[in-house]
Amino acid sequence: MILVVDVGNTRIKAAVFEGAILLEIFVFTKIELDKNIKNILKKFQKVAHLVVSSVGDVEKQSFLAFDSVLNICFVSNEDPFPFQNKYSTPKTLGIDRMVLAAGAVFQFPNQNRLVIDAGTCITYDFIDHQNNYLGGAITPGLRLRYQSLHNYTAKLPLLTLESPEELIGNSTSNSIHSGVVNGLVYEIDGFITEYSTRYSNFIIILTGGDTDFLAKRLKNTIFANSNFLLESLNQTFQYKIKND
Amino acid sequence: MILVVDVGNTRIKAAVFEGAILLEIFVFTKIELDKNIKNILKKFQKVAHLVVSSVGDVEKQSFLAFDSVLNICFVSNEDPFPFQNKYSTPKTLGIDRMVLAAGAVFQFPNQNRLVIDAGTCITYDFIDHQNNYLGGAITPGLRLRYQSLHNYTAKLPLLTLESPEELIGNSTSNSIHSGVVNGLVYEIDGFITEYSTRYSNFIIILTGGDTDFLAKRLKNTIFANSNFLLESLNQTFQYKIKND
Repeated sequence: MILVVDVGNTRIKAAVFEGAILLEIFVFTKIELDKNIKNILKKFQKVAHLVVSSVGDVEKQSFLAFDSVLNICFVSNEDPFPFQNKYSTPKTLGIDRMVLAAGAVFQFPNQNRLVIDAGTCITYDFIDHQNNYLGGAITPGLRLRYQSLHNYTAKLPLLTLESPEELIGNSTSNSIHSGVVNGLVYEIDGFITEYSTRYSNFIIILTGGDTDFLAKRLKNTIFANSNFLLESLNQTFQYKIKND
Repeated sequence: MILVVDVGNTRIKAAVFEGAILLEIFVFTKIELDKNIKNILKKFQKVAHLVVSSVGDVEKQSFLAFDSVLNICFVSNEDPFPFQNKYSTPKTLGIDRMVLAAGAVFQFPNQNRLVIDAGTCITYDFIDHQNNYLGGAITPGLRLRYQSLHNYTAKLPLLTLESPEELIGNSTSNSIHSGVVNGLVYEIDGFITEYSTRYSNFIIILTGGDTDFLAKRLKNTIFANSNFLLESLNQTFQYKIKND
């Protein structure tokens, strides 16, 4: 059994896999990391490998307590990946984006793929049908947009994510909901349209914490899977074992 | 002569008008407010009225020093405006948005208007051909997006506005530039397209500090005028004098 841990900027998501089968998912904060890992290991005593991808400020040391009972693999860009990395600054490519690109290659072979991860940030990543990772884009996610409107202005309130009732917001709250939610939906559809002018065929994978909220609002047909990063992490580890 | 002062969230923009003619524009920060107003009054000794619109944290008291030599008008939502305000929370409608809506009515009579102000925030405001102000949307501006990517994540750098070289950013910097700039352009074009499905005809006015940067990137035809708020402030004051 494998325990995969995705450390994001806001929260930690973990999952236990038996082969390719996802058994259970856990979501918690950094402060609760130690306690949660212990509880997971108590529940799934057959876990032998701990596989971590971290873009947050949780480093290898945070897992040292488990070093004696588990094989710990902190995924890094030194590991083998199933694509050619065409990024001009491969060392600063977020490990989450590399794992997502690997998952796209494993799950959707021999085709062009656009992976959109909607979490703290929205990341766009393109891997062509010859398995060249080309790069993409990074923009603020839904909650970052709400936060920045409040934190960097004198008079706007801090709101939590809500579906806008109308295109034309008739109050300050409705204006913000329309701006943030509709704005991001138009952005994602706009990126997809622009990729379409360059690539006649590609599959679109949407993942991340806001997958369900966004999927039903997009006009393009997408493959939505909020667990895509966890699955990709499991597959990346299997690939590493075979190729190391 | 009239000195109009637009206090935004990030900077202050001022202009001297002789009737409808804009004589000179000044841009400065809040700390330099007093010094700059004094210099402007020294240069334009005929200025009799100081007209202020403030969404930042600069209040009426900041201008008291000039009370003995000038007629000071701090524009508020109690003033007469040339439109019916259909906002459900008129007291929280930013005074900048009200002034922009007034300017749209004055400069583009008898037609539907969408005003897009691209500054610290992007505000969208719609005033129909019967002069009903309906509301709109608020989203983070270009610099807010760059700042939030750095300030709310562990590993992304703080970048300054730059034109993206490619759709597919092949480095962390290029990914951020593509995400922020292309993302906002797709958002604005998306909003315009969505308004088009509801209103067959409307004029689009683009204003604010990022007018020139954005205007050439939009696919829709717009009326771009970075001084639209200053002109509208002058017109709003003239309208107040006539209607008070």
